Amino acid sequence: MLVSSIPKTDNRFFVFEGVNGSGKSSLIDRLNREIPNSIKTREPGGTPLGEKLRQILQVDKEPISSLTELFLFQADRAHHVDFIKTELKKGKTVFCDRYFYSSIAFQGAGRGLMDVEELSMKAIQGLLPACVFLLDLDPVEGLKRREGLSEIDRFEGEQLEFHKRVRAEFLRLAKTRPEPFILIDATKSREEIFNSVYRIIGSC
Amino acid sequence: MLVSSIPKTDNRFFVFEGVNGSGKSSLIDRLNREIPNSIKTREPGGTPLGEKLRQILQVDKEPISSLTELFLFQADRAHHVDFIKTELKKGKTVFCDRYFYSSIAFQGAGRGLMDVEELSMKAIQGLLPACVFLLDLDPVEGLKRREGLSEIDRFEGEQLEFHKRVRAEFLRLAKTRPEPFILIDATKSREEIFNSVYRIIGSC
Repeated sequence: MLVSSIPKTDNRFFVFEGVNGSGKSSLIDRLNREIPNSIKTREPGGTPLGEKLRQILQVDKEPISSLTELFLFQADRAHHVDFIKTELKKGKTVFCDRYFYSSIAFQGAGRGLMDVEELSMKAIQGLLPACVFLLDLDPVEGLKRREGLSEIDRFEGEQLEFHKRVRAEFLRLAKTRPEPFILIDATKSREEIFNSVYRIIGSC
Repeated sequence: MLVSSIPKTDNRFFVFEGVNGSGKSSLIDRLNREIPNSIKTREPGGTPLGEKLRQILQVDKEPISSLTELFLFQADRAHHVDFIKTELKKGKTVFCDRYFYSSIAFQGAGRGLMDVEELSMKAIQGLLPACVFLLDLDPVEGLKRREGLSEIDRFEGEQLEFHKRVRAEFLRLAKTRPEPFILIDATKSREEIFNSVYRIIGSC
C-alpha cells in the first residue's frame, strides 16, 4: 500500500525498487555510508552463490528461457533471504537493491510468466521488508541515463514497451501489496531523494 | 504405473532412475554406444548452464538450504528440457540419467520439502518420458558400491535412513505416476540388465 511515512517498527529491512537507471544503487551506497551498523546487498547477488548466478543471469551469453531465468532468480532469492535473516538477527540495518517485486515486474509483467508472485512467496520464506522505496521514473529517461554503460544486462536489451509494462507493474504493486511503499519521483535531485529517504528511515 | 513392456510409441525419451550406485551411468553409456542416433544426458547437467549448476550443487562447498537447492534443480531442469526437446525433434533417441522423479525422491521424500512434484511439473513443460527404467537397489548395497569414489555429492553424505526414504519413494512413484515404469533388479549382472533394457527399447 502507498504510504507517506512508516510506523515505528523493529524490522530493519529496507528494499529499493525501480526501473534501470532510477538511481537506486547510488542512493543505497550513500545510505550505507551514512547510517551506522548497516549493510547493502542486491538481487541477484549478495552472496558467493548469488554472484555466480548473477554472472549466469546478467553476463553469460548462453540463451536461457524465461522459465529457467525465473527459477534461477528464485534460487538466488531463497539463498539471499537466509543471508539477510542472519544479518538482521545481528542487529544490522539491511538495504537491498531489488527484491521479489522485481521478479513480478520484470518476469511476470515484462516477460508474461505466470505464478511469479506465488513462487516468490515460497522463496522469501516470510521475510517482508519494513518498507519498499519505489524510485519511479519514465523508462525513456531511465534508458537514457544508462546509455554508454558497458554492462548491459538481459533486461536492458528489451524494447521500451517491456520497460513500460515493468514500470506500470511496480506502480500497481505499490498500491496492492500489503507492505508499505513510499513512492519517490526519481527525476528529483540525488540530494533531495537522499534527504527524504534518510528522514523516513531515521524516524521509524 | 508398473509395466513389463512398453506399447509402440513415437516418444524416444527414456529416463533412468535409482539410488546412487545402482549402475545407471554405465548402462546408459552402453545403450548410447549400441543404439544408433542416440544421445545421453543427465540431470543436473547436460548443458553448459547445467554443468555450472551441477558444480554448484554437487561440488562447491558453500552451504545452501534445501529450498535453494530445489530451485537450482528446477532451473537446471527447465533449461535441460529445452535441450531435450530440440534433440527429440532432430529424431534422436535420448537417454537421461535422472529426471524430476529424483527431485521428488531426494528432495521431497529425502529432505522433506513440500510441493516438489508441483514445481517439477512446471519445470518439465509437459515433457514426459516414454518409459522410466527404475534400477532398484538396497541403499546399503548402493553406498558400498560407491565407496572409494573421490567425488561425493551432497546427497551421498546423507545417512542411510535418508537413502531408504529415497528408495521407497522411487517405488511409490513407479506405482502411482501415470508414465510406464519398468522395475529392474539392480543386483543382476550388467549383461543381463543391458540385454533386457535393450530388448524393451528395441521393441517399442
